[in-house]
Amino acid sequence: SSIFFTWSLLLLINPFEPEPVAEPSKYGSLWPLPQKVQISDVSYKLSSSNFRIVDGKLSYADPSCSLLQDAYRRYFDYIFGLTRKHGPKSGRTGPSELTELQVWITSPDTECDGYPSLASDESCESLSFFNIQLLDLIYYIVFILFPLFLGLETFSQLVYEDEYGVKNVNSSEINDFPRFAHRGILLDSSRHFLPVQVILDNLETMAMNKFNVFHWHIVDDPSFPFMSKTFPQLSQKGAYHPYTHVYTPADVKKVIEFARVRGIRVIPEFDTPGHTQSWGKGDFPCENLLTPCYSGSKPSGTFGPVNPILNSTYDFMKQFFKEISTVFPDAYIHLGGDEVNFSCWKSNPDIQKFMTDHGFGQDFSKLESFYIQNLLDIVTTTNKGYMIWQEVFDNGVKLTPDTLIHVWKGNQQQYQKEMANVTSSGYQTLLSTPWYLNRISYGQDWQEFYKADPQEFNGTETQKKLVIGGEACLWGEYVDATNLSPRLWPRASAVAERLWSAMDVTDLGDAWNRLSPHRCRMVERGVPAEPLFVSYCPREYNGV
Amino acid sequence: SSIFFTWSLLLLINPFEPEPVAEPSKYGSLWPLPQKVQISDVSYKLSSSNFRIVDGKLSYADPSCSLLQDAYRRYFDYIFGLTRKHGPKSGRTGPSELTELQVWITSPDTECDGYPSLASDESCESLSFFNIQLLDLIYYIVFILFPLFLGLETFSQLVYEDEYGVKNVNSSEINDFPRFAHRGILLDSSRHFLPVQVILDNLETMAMNKFNVFHWHIVDDPSFPFMSKTFPQLSQKGAYHPYTHVYTPADVKKVIEFARVRGIRVIPEFDTPGHTQSWGKGDFPCENLLTPCYSGSKPSGTFGPVNPILNSTYDFMKQFFKEISTVFPDAYIHLGGDEVNFSCWKSNPDIQKFMTDHGFGQDFSKLESFYIQNLLDIVTTTNKGYMIWQEVFDNGVKLTPDTLIHVWKGNQQQYQKEMANVTSSGYQTLLSTPWYLNRISYGQDWQEFYKADPQEFNGTETQKKLVIGGEACLWGEYVDATNLSPRLWPRASAVAERLWSAMDVTDLGDAWNRLSPHRCRMVERGVPAEPLFVSYCPREYNGV
Repeated sequence: SSIFFTWSLLLLINPFEPEPVAEPSKYGSLWPLPQKVQISDVSYKLSSSNFRIVDGKLSYADPSCSLLQDAYRRYFDYIFGLTRKHGPKSGRTGPSELTELQVWITSPDTECDGYPSLASDESCESLSFFNIQLLDLIYYIVFILFPLFLGLETFSQLVYEDEYGVKNVNSSEINDFPRFAHRGILLDSSRHFLPVQVILDNLETMAMNKFNVFHWHIVDDPSFPFMSKTFPQLSQKGAYHPYTHVYTPADVKKVIEFARVRGIRVIPEFDTPGHTQSWGKGDFPCENLLTPCYSGSKPSGTFGPVNPILNSTYDFMKQFFKEISTVFPDAYIHLGGDEVNFSCWKSNPDIQKFMTDHGFGQDFSKLESFYIQNLLDIVTTTNKGYMIWQEVFDNGVKLTPDTLIHVWKGNQQQYQKEMANVTSSGYQTLLSTPWYLNRISYGQDWQEFYKADPQEFNGTETQKKLVIGGEACLWGEYVDATNLSPRLWPRASAVAERLWSAMDVTDLGDAWNRLSPHRCRMVERGVPAEPLFVSYCPREYNGV
Repeated sequence: SSIFFTWSLLLLINPFEPEPVAEPSKYGSLWPLPQKVQISDVSYKLSSSNFRIVDGKLSYADPSCSLLQDAYRRYFDYIFGLTRKHGPKSGRTGPSELTELQVWITSPDTECDGYPSLASDESCESLSFFNIQLLDLIYYIVFILFPLFLGLETFSQLVYEDEYGVKNVNSSEINDFPRFAHRGILLDSSRHFLPVQVILDNLETMAMNKFNVFHWHIVDDPSFPFMSKTFPQLSQKGAYHPYTHVYTPADVKKVIEFARVRGIRVIPEFDTPGHTQSWGKGDFPCENLLTPCYSGSKPSGTFGPVNPILNSTYDFMKQFFKEISTVFPDAYIHLGGDEVNFSCWKSNPDIQKFMTDHGFGQDFSKLESFYIQNLLDIVTTTNKGYMIWQEVFDNGVKLTPDTLIHVWKGNQQQYQKEMANVTSSGYQTLLSTPWYLNRISYGQDWQEFYKADPQEFNGTETQKKLVIGGEACLWGEYVDATNLSPRLWPRASAVAERLWSAMDVTDLGDAWNRLSPHRCRMVERGVPAEPLFVSYCPREYNGV
């Protein structure tokens, strides 16, 4: 099952001046493309004096649900932009003027205070029902809460300016639901610290592209900016700076709430046993979380991955993930598990003895699995599900059936084989390999992102259904607040359409014709989304 | 001859927290590296209440020279940043406090109202003399006008914050002059329109990196944003929009003045006979500037390069470049001449007849040379020198001896051979081939830009002296206001040091150790200069 929208409403021809190469698409500037779109040429005017977004008469919407009111204002601002007027309602309306967009919440559970989840997205097919009709110049929309933002976004994308600057929307019919339930963006706040405002700005842009998962790769080798209440020394010692380069509990709450009211889940990643150099800095006075590396018969003074042979390690992890499970409300935590370097473990005589005692021989992947197995058991007691990078599956660790396997490695042939292996073992999976957006190259690379398809591998229909989606990853080696937004957008928009729209939406020409104005719309909304190619926007970026 | 500075003053150890990988350099965060630097460990404090930048007692500085006063304020702001105080002078000074930076203009011609030029740069060796001495806690600086900005920039780079946030500068001695007189940045405002503020911001950043030439590739095939008074229809028809996407005469003046007071020359490029599609749109009512292409025996309705066989073409160019020569004060104009596609000329029967009449056979490069020769003669009458892309030289066009040949094509072997050919013919040349910064790739590509050297080719000392410098080019296919600054900086900084510092300054490790804090300094001054690698800045970019 999946989210399902039905729109019966008015639609547009083309909302922007065509760019030098872009032609008008019959789907206007809709991005990502809804599942079914029919746009008539009957247009209706919108006036910022008269137009209102209101709760429908039979809506279950609770007037105290500020989340709704905030969304109304946000989309009112997006629709009218700089042309909006602040005066009182004029009282006069034209003959073909649309005065109301009615929002109908069809479920008694408005989920106003709840969080979006993988489960709720999956069960939306019958619940998330849009019905927008023209009736005495009044629109009706019916939908449940979290997809509401999706519906308002779609409506705002239907609005276009005519040659006099008047906002118009054409009669149209839209049925919509996403192809995949998990549509994510990974940001890395360890290799470079990302100020909270950068994260909020990108959540805003994610909503414009109907992404619904923020994968927060919050800590890694270079720095530990997450402020733990249980182990405050982790960020005090492990962050680039204990005050200016950390996320306080209030910061984290702000991010989660900002995401929630836009229908976006926040899944934190605490990657172990590798990628943990910064954890070691805060691990005093005992200094035994990380493995001491040896040079010959003596400790070299450097440290390797988490030390998997000490009980104290698992005591630490129990307390740490107990805290994490309360700080982050999402049902899933990403536990990493990628790229464990075995050389330090090999050098350490205590580890070698442990290997022998446990009959692991020299197969250090067995030791890794031993650690991961213990970690997964710990996290399971917190009632969280987990996501892990593909190595954990490859190494044969025993996983709970609801584990999500995150595929990130190899060339096309290799990742398709991995997807086949994972799903034939009955696990759910999501893809990132072709969407490492930190990797840049000269030219229109959005087309390559657009062509990749997570269900393109040898497998049965049952296997294909185990693919829950994918994530665009922007690793932080070369990215910080100075260049994150233009590097991510609109390249990630190509991934957004692949994960949302029907499998057969693959026409690069039509994609270009819609993505070009979508890029300009983001620019007009204040996002420094970089150009796709030679072109211009009716209103250029002015945030310089 | 070249610019020559002598500084006897106080210097620093390392002005920034070392980044994860960067180590303190013995040259602090100086970028580009001056020719001679000696930094002692004697430090002096600066107080924003007490410190002043003033005209020296025997300076030729004219108090009415607002250019100087603007520079003083700009560098006062840079030095003290957010910590500067706005209150009155305290009257109390500490025992090791530096209270004055004296600026001495040594030439009676302060050039306050003049423009920087290739010639003035070349003759600076004896004129541009800095002498900063410690004398009862007063500094002396002596220099002429345009390099003044260079001297203030260097001084500001010597200032660092100690652990209490106090600004310090160490006793030091600096002798400086640039290796090359022409150190340029090319921006392309045709493929994407660049708002004036974007250009001004980048002139500001150029000054921080001691670039002294803004090569304004102002028009090209996609659009013609330059508003000509003589032919207003060129931008009315050829710009993306006749009001929002054009440079008015006032805009152009603003750019030139903003550059001038920072010691930066503005060289406009009007590229012909190719790259002129946008010119054709404004060429009415006669519609004969561009060559009509033929399909068989009939005009196809499309147009090719400038039509070189009509007198009206040369009449147009005479009037056009007469205007250009007055709008842009610099002694040079860039006339382009690259990438002429001959297929349209070939298709046109009138052109074919002209070829036969002139005995050109089927060698269309002879026709191109015919056109260029006429154009150069026209521009020569305006008393301007010209720069041209290498094809014009390759095609054997007769050039005046002061022509600057701009090398941009080929792999390393090919461009080095071209530099050898050009200089063995006695022409001055500058290099751009290895510095096409629009070409991006994953990783630390600044190192490749840093390694390239414009004098590295087989040639005599006389030939080497004909190399006047180089330009970093940021072509506009994938660049506009949303991403220009982080794409250009600090990658262009690598080129800046190559063109300024001594030939043997090639240590990548020391470059990294200075470039990392230089990048953070740009960020602190408000420039969204992207990170070089995993790292952090004491004060992250907050302009999001």
